[in-house]
Amino acid sequence: MTVYHKTITITTKGEVDMIDITSELQQIITKSTLTEGILCVYVPGSTGTLTTIEYEPGLQKDLPLALEKIAPKDQYYHHHETWHDDNGHSHVRASLMGPSLSLPFQNKKLLHGTWQQIVFVELDTSPRTRELIVQLVGE
Amino acid sequence: MTVYHKTITITTKGEVDMIDITSELQQIITKSTLTEGILCVYVPGSTGTLTTIEYEPGLQKDLPLALEKIAPKDQYYHHHETWHDDNGHSHVRASLMGPSLSLPFQNKKLLHGTWQQIVFVELDTSPRTRELIVQLVGE
Amino acid sequence: MTVYHKTITITTKGEVDMIDITSELQQIITKSTLTEGILCVYVPGSTGTLTTIEYEPGLQKDLPLALEKIAPKDQYYHHHETWHDDNGHSHVRASLMGPSLSLPFQNKKLLHGTWQQIVFVELDTSPRTRELIVQLVGE
Repeated sequence: MTVYHKTITITTKGEVDMIDITSELQQIITKSTLTEGILCVYVPGSTGTLTTIEYEPGLQKDLPLALEKIAPKDQYYHHHETWHDDNGHSHVRASLMGPSLSLPFQNKKLLHGTWQQIVFVELDTSPRTRELIVQLVGE
Repeated sequence: MTVYHKTITITTKGEVDMIDITSELQQIITKSTLTEGILCVYVPGSTGTLTTIEYEPGLQKDLPLALEKIAPKDQYYHHHETWHDDNGHSHVRASLMGPSLSLPFQNKKLLHGTWQQIVFVELDTSPRTRELIVQLVGE
Repeated sequence: MTVYHKTITITTKGEVDMIDITSELQQIITKSTLTEGILCVYVPGSTGTLTTIEYEPGLQKDLPLALEKIAPKDQYYHHHETWHDDNGHSHVRASLMGPSLSLPFQNKKLLHGTWQQIVFVELDTSPRTRELIVQLVGE
């Protein structure tokens, strides 16, 4: 088998909540029939993102502060005219950061750094249940 | 067959023009011999980017406004000394956003969200014809 | 064989040093047993990033200037309270830009643009030796 497909369901606590999914991804590799290849993790939605970070309380505040500078919440967004909602900044931040990550694995191990975790960042304005897609390709 | 290669040719109307390529990507999967795997879409140029967005008129204005804030057009760029052109901001925006996207597909369907489209964003200062590379790996 | 694994070791000169790794990636494809597929290049660390750029001296200054605007060095970061170090901005920049790139190859050639190089950008505050992971999947 060369492709292995799984989903991860997570519940976020609200805006800029950052969830460490590193061990869930490692478990998927462990349970799969693949030994080496590329793992793609993807959020099928337009107000969340995936990235890597040293998962510690300081950076969990610093990254949101940088996002607030790049696309401030209390600013006019044309998106609000389309749907009369309040998450224009969430969409802009998500498009800038991207919806997916490609990660290498070898000998059934995800090859991330010791101080580098894989995280989902909730960018929408309220708590959400998110189903992330995980696709492994290799052998 | 485990690899399928295609290109998509698009014509952009100029700076920050955003083209929805979701259906073209789905068509490539449909016509391919693959059922599941990872799709990589890539722009072989340094002044364009690929991302996902809810493709509606409001966000088509909001994302460019955020890019104008991050890397303003009317600012000095050292790049202009090299080539005496005017697209330093285009290059910087493209490097920040990245040249490719990895997307999962399963049962011959691209697994994006309902309100999430895959787009190419023209970041150069004039209309361009772009040939995007689409590579499918899977089975 | 459908997966090929290699590493690239590079030494960076310090903050915002940008290293062109295009020819190293092409060499890996050349030496591999694969002809076509997807190449994933990944930095197993949380203070560096991979992207594409026209590798010329002007943009090597312009991209760092944009990063300084997005996440300034001389600003308070909560990260510094955790470790009493000075690289909060390095972490934030790396999370915004991402740790990996997916690149297509065909007929044993990496399909980048003529004026588009693949680069590692050192975002940490001092010179580092970096081992980048390169994973090829295809046939």
